Amino acid sequence: MSDPSQRVRNSFAQQQFMTTLGASLRSVKPGAVEIEMLFRAELTQQDGFTHAGAITSVLDSACGYAALSVAPEGANVLSVEFKVNLLSPAVGERFVARALVKRAGRQISVCSADAFAVRGKEEKLVATMLATIITVPAKS
Amino acid sequence: MSDPSQRVRNSFAQQQFMTTLGASLRSVKPGAVEIEMLFRAELTQQDGFTHAGAITSVLDSACGYAALSVAPEGANVLSVEFKVNLLSPAVGERFVARALVKRAGRQISVCSADAFAVRGKEEKLVATMLATIITVPAKS
Amino acid sequence: MSDPSQRVRNSFAQQQFMTTLGASLRSVKPGAVEIEMLFRAELTQQDGFTHAGAITSVLDSACGYAALSVAPEGANVLSVEFKVNLLSPAVGERFVARALVKRAGRQISVCSADAFAVRGKEEKLVATMLATIITVPAKS
Amino acid sequence: MSDPSQRVRNSFAQQQFMTTLGASLRSVKPGAVEIEMLFRAELTQQDGFTHAGAITSVLDSACGYAALSVAPEGANVLSVEFKVNLLSPAVGERFVARALVKRAGRQISVCSADAFAVRGKEEKLVATMLATIITVPAKS
Repeated sequence: MSDPSQRVRNSFAQQQFMTTLGASLRSVKPGAVEIEMLFRAELTQQDGFTHAGAITSVLDSACGYAALSVAPEGANVLSVEFKVNLLSPAVGERFVARALVKRAGRQISVCSADAFAVRGKEEKLVATMLATIITVPAKS
Repeated sequence: MSDPSQRVRNSFAQQQFMTTLGASLRSVKPGAVEIEMLFRAELTQQDGFTHAGAITSVLDSACGYAALSVAPEGANVLSVEFKVNLLSPAVGERFVARALVKRAGRQISVCSADAFAVRGKEEKLVATMLATIITVPAKS
Repeated sequence: MSDPSQRVRNSFAQQQFMTTLGASLRSVKPGAVEIEMLFRAELTQQDGFTHAGAITSVLDSACGYAALSVAPEGANVLSVEFKVNLLSPAVGERFVARALVKRAGRQISVCSADAFAVRGKEEKLVATMLATIITVPAKS
Repeated sequence: MSDPSQRVRNSFAQQQFMTTLGASLRSVKPGAVEIEMLFRAELTQQDGFTHAGAITSVLDSACGYAALSVAPEGANVLSVEFKVNLLSPAVGERFVARALVKRAGRQISVCSADAFAVRGKEEKLVATMLATIITVPAKS
C-alpha cells in the first residue's frame, strides 16, 4: 500500500518544469499541499515582477497534488481547467502556493489555492486559483 | 508616436520568463498576437508532456499583448484574471498560442486564446483561455 | 434510435426555469444550440438591465444542450463549471445565447457561448461563457 | 453619510430578479453578505433540481453586494466576470449563498462565495464562485 504523501513526492520529483521554476514541495498532508518557489530573474515579466504564468504553474501543481493526496491508490489526476485571479504584483523573495481540496469526488475534484509573496516575515496574497481536477485510472 | 507592434515587441523582449520558456513572438497584428514555444524537456510534467503552467504562461502573454496592441499610446495592460481549459495532453514539437481581443474596453478588455500542439504539419488544439485585462496609465 | 435534436427539445421543455425566464429554444444543430430570452422587468437588476444571472442561465443551458446534441445515445450531461465575462450592460428587447462545442470528449466536453442583446435588427455582444460539461450515463 | 448595509439593502430591493427567484437578503456585514433562496419548482431544470443559473444568480448578487458593502460612499459596483463550480446537485428546501471579499481594491475587487443546500438542519455545499468586481463612480 503506497503512502499518498510519498506518491505526491515521487510525482513532483518527475516534474522537470518545477525544477526549471526553482520550486519545491514544502508540505503534503491529506487534501493540502504547499509548494515554494524562489524569486529568480529568469521568471520575470517586463516590469521585473514574477510572471503570472510562473505563479499559476505552482498553483496548478499544488492543486493537482492536493487532489492526488486524497485519490484512491492506483489513480492518477489531471487538471481539467483552472481560473486564476491575480490580486497584486508578485513581488517577493519567494512565493508559497497553498492548495486545499474543496470537494473530493469519485471523478471530479475541486481545489482552491492561494499564492503568497514572502518578504522577510511578511506574506502577501498575490493570486488565487479555483481548479477542477479529474481522477483517472493510472497507466499500468 | 509609437508603433503598437513595436511596443509589444519591446515589452516581450523584456519578459525574461519567455526566454526561459523558449518562447518567441511569431506575429503581432492589431488585436491579434501569436507566440510560439518549442518543446523542451525542462518544461515537462510527470508524464513527459509540457506542463499546463508553461502552456498557460504563453497564453497569458499572448492575451496581454493582444490587448496592448490596441491600447491607447502611453497605456499599459495587466492581467486581472484568466481561465484555462486543458483539452488534450500537450504533446508536440512546438506549441502556438493565438490570442484575439474579444472586447476592447477603455478600462477592461477581454481576450480569448487557443494553444495548439504542432507535430509536422498537423496542429491540435490543446488548451483555450478566456482572460480579463485592465488598461492602466503607463508609469512615466 | 432517438433524434439528438428531439432529445434536446424534450429536455429543454422540462426545464421549468427556462419558462420562468421566458426563454425558448431557437435552434438545435449538432454541436450548436441557440436559446432566446425576451426582456422582462422581472429579470432585471437594480439599474433596470437584465440580471447577469438570467443571462448566465441561458448561456449555461445553451452550453449543456450543445454538448448533449453530440453526446452518445442514452447519455446525459451535467455542467461541471463555467466562467462568464460580462462585456456590456444587458440592454435589449431580447437576448440570444449561442453555444458551440469546442471539444467533444468521451467524458469531458468544453463549450463556448456568446450572449447578444438584440434591439431591432442590431445585435450587441453582452456576455461570453466558457463551460466544462461532463457526460454521464442517463438514469434508466 | 450613508450606512453601507442600508445601501446594500436598498439596491437589493430594486433587483426584481431576486423577487422572481424568491431570494432575500439574510445578512449584510462589511465584506460579507448572505442571500437565501427558497426551493421553488419554477426554478428547476430537467431533473427537478434547482437550475445552476438560479444558484449562480444569488451567488453573483451576493458577491456584488459583498464588494459594495466595503466600497467608498458614492461608488457603484459591477460584475466583470465570475466562475462557478457546481459541486453537487442543488437539492434542498432552500439555498444560502455566502460571499466574502477576498481582496478589496480601489478599482478591482475579488470575492468568493459558496452556495449551500439546506435540508432541515443540514447544509451541503453545492456550488462555489470566484468573482471579479469593478468599482465605478455612481451615476448622479
